[in-house]
Amino acid sequence: MARATIVGAGMTRFGKFPDRTVRDLAEEAARAAMGDAGVTAVDVQRVFFGNAVSGLITGQEMIRGQIALRDLGLGPIPVLNVENACASGSSAVHQAVTSIEAGQSDLVMVVGAEKLTHEDKRRSFEAIGTAVDLERLEQLERDLYGDEPAADGDRSFFMDVYAAMAKRYMDRSGATEADFAAVAVKSHDHAATNPVAQYRDPVTVDQVLSSRHISGPLTLLMCSPIGDGAAALLLASEERAEQMRADAVQVAASVLVSGLGTDDDPAGIGARQAYEQAGLGPDDVDVVEVHDAAAPAELIMYEELGLCGPGEGPKLLASNETRIGGRVPVNPSGGLISKGHPVGATGVAQLVELTEQLRGRCGERQVDGARIALAENGGGYLGPHPAAVTITMLQRG
Amino acid sequence: MARATIVGAGMTRFGKFPDRTVRDLAEEAARAAMGDAGVTAVDVQRVFFGNAVSGLITGQEMIRGQIALRDLGLGPIPVLNVENACASGSSAVHQAVTSIEAGQSDLVMVVGAEKLTHEDKRRSFEAIGTAVDLERLEQLERDLYGDEPAADGDRSFFMDVYAAMAKRYMDRSGATEADFAAVAVKSHDHAATNPVAQYRDPVTVDQVLSSRHISGPLTLLMCSPIGDGAAALLLASEERAEQMRADAVQVAASVLVSGLGTDDDPAGIGARQAYEQAGLGPDDVDVVEVHDAAAPAELIMYEELGLCGPGEGPKLLASNETRIGGRVPVNPSGGLISKGHPVGATGVAQLVELTEQLRGRCGERQVDGARIALAENGGGYLGPHPAAVTITMLQRG
Repeated sequence: MARATIVGAGMTRFGKFPDRTVRDLAEEAARAAMGDAGVTAVDVQRVFFGNAVSGLITGQEMIRGQIALRDLGLGPIPVLNVENACASGSSAVHQAVTSIEAGQSDLVMVVGAEKLTHEDKRRSFEAIGTAVDLERLEQLERDLYGDEPAADGDRSFFMDVYAAMAKRYMDRSGATEADFAAVAVKSHDHAATNPVAQYRDPVTVDQVLSSRHISGPLTLLMCSPIGDGAAALLLASEERAEQMRADAVQVAASVLVSGLGTDDDPAGIGARQAYEQAGLGPDDVDVVEVHDAAAPAELIMYEELGLCGPGEGPKLLASNETRIGGRVPVNPSGGLISKGHPVGATGVAQLVELTEQLRGRCGERQVDGARIALAENGGGYLGPHPAAVTITMLQRG
Repeated sequence: MARATIVGAGMTRFGKFPDRTVRDLAEEAARAAMGDAGVTAVDVQRVFFGNAVSGLITGQEMIRGQIALRDLGLGPIPVLNVENACASGSSAVHQAVTSIEAGQSDLVMVVGAEKLTHEDKRRSFEAIGTAVDLERLEQLERDLYGDEPAADGDRSFFMDVYAAMAKRYMDRSGATEADFAAVAVKSHDHAATNPVAQYRDPVTVDQVLSSRHISGPLTLLMCSPIGDGAAALLLASEERAEQMRADAVQVAASVLVSGLGTDDDPAGIGARQAYEQAGLGPDDVDVVEVHDAAAPAELIMYEELGLCGPGEGPKLLASNETRIGGRVPVNPSGGLISKGHPVGATGVAQLVELTEQLRGRCGERQVDGARIALAENGGGYLGPHPAAVTITMLQRG
């Protein structure tokens, strides 16, 4: 079986860009990845395009990839539009890996792009809020809020989901709001050295705790922001990659799971499958990006990924081992909280960061000697689990 | 390389079903396909879900497949949401074939489902109208209409696209409005014996020509209707299929092309690739389903698929060789005009029909001795070409 290898990576800065379009963002990321790989658009054999909410934000419900990339100079190649909520980008990567493993293509482009900002901020929140079962929203809200007041439209419904998750985690681990704040402090410290991050100013625990209350234990600085951006990867077969560059990065595992029909966290299921696929374990991992749409998720992921035992998330965080310089830095990019979270771009951007880490090109935020990397990207909510989780492992050749 | 094989097929009736939901339709089709294959939901290893416009019609913009199929009893398996406008369903099939060819799964389900009707019919037309470049709509309309009046909101913008295509075809082939009417007559005759078709009453050429004017040479009965429905397939590896059933149907070719960067019709490009992949030619094909969103498209496809030479579409139609009982029946199901066109379901439903034809289970509309089948499914419009076209070839073992 042909193994997929990353030969090009590029992304835009993440942020609120009222004047930029999905097309504009996607093109910039695609051109950066092609330039990095040393190929042109006519070399690309297949495109997977990850986007989550353009239908509701820009009105472009269909053929989003063909439209966003039509000025790039691609040939009449297959373009597939892939959606899996906040895991859309990595689901597109998963498809690209499959295509290469099938021997169907030997140079595939993945672009994840999202324009999430809208002049009416409620539109952005409402769009994100469609990653749940809308026909059963009332039941979902009852499960979530009990007798508490429901979401007031000035925040994403998903922050209420994360708040409920955070409370359950506090109960079983003893984690405190200060622990969640410490996650945000670390993320912001990391993002301070990342030129593409949405927020690059360090913050203190007190600043995080005293920022605007969002939901349950969550404050504004514990939550990923609304933002726009795009990221792109070029993947090749191993043979093709060998002809292209010396610092190619292998995809050691690519796993997608859903939250259907299970009592377990899909991230844990996916992580076990990924470690088996890669023939590696948690101790082998040098650098990690996790889907911290809200800060508590990072601590929960420490456990699901096997970086620490059950309930040990706060202790692992406090040990500073997940900071740059520690044993296994988590979210060196700044993560979703600080780097930003333009939905469909996020999963691809995580892998752009990890590719650059494995190539040793991250400057101040470089994780020294990183050889094995892991990304976890989650999307949607089925109650009580996410609808889609991907685990991707990368390995320096 | 593992070859993909169809081991289960099922679909709902197509039609306007105000009281049915995407979930309800998708479940019925999925259960029918699983029943046909003799498997249960826990046996399914991966799902590809094709849907085009739920974000605009029902509001369910994200995780459409997980939501539609969540009561089915699936395990925590990968679910991928695939969109390619009217070619969403067959694009999902293409992905399923790839997954099997990669050795990633040996039992994959594809569901294409669409709820296109809306109490406000303009919403349905507007939704379909998002399969073009919305940022460049003015230019597109200028190219399409010149000095003529633009679409008036009481029809799909796409019927104007098909009308322009029809006029170009009339110029180069000498086809007449009566020829287009004859396509509709044939489709309705075929659909009369198809229990899942939306329209089952035969029509005459005069009735077609005197039905309501839609755009250019097109009248109402030459155009595919608004409708709802779902279709599902189960695909297995060849080894697995051999253990499952004697009348399994092999996927001999699965090709997806886009209308980017080419002067040729993508359907012609795709057909050539498909024939090469299958090691077969147009003369080998026994039965065909084409994407006749409007009647002229059927004649154009005769030529693109190599069933006749350039300009010979009207002659081939008049010869009755594309009727059931002729040399190469086209759209025995009734096609999009008569069977119906619930966007995301269409491409899967074409393959359900062809699977049943190759199994010899089509009763009155059976194409005798059919061994090789071909489906063409198109989606979106980039001006002048569709955004996505799939060509799928099936072969009886």
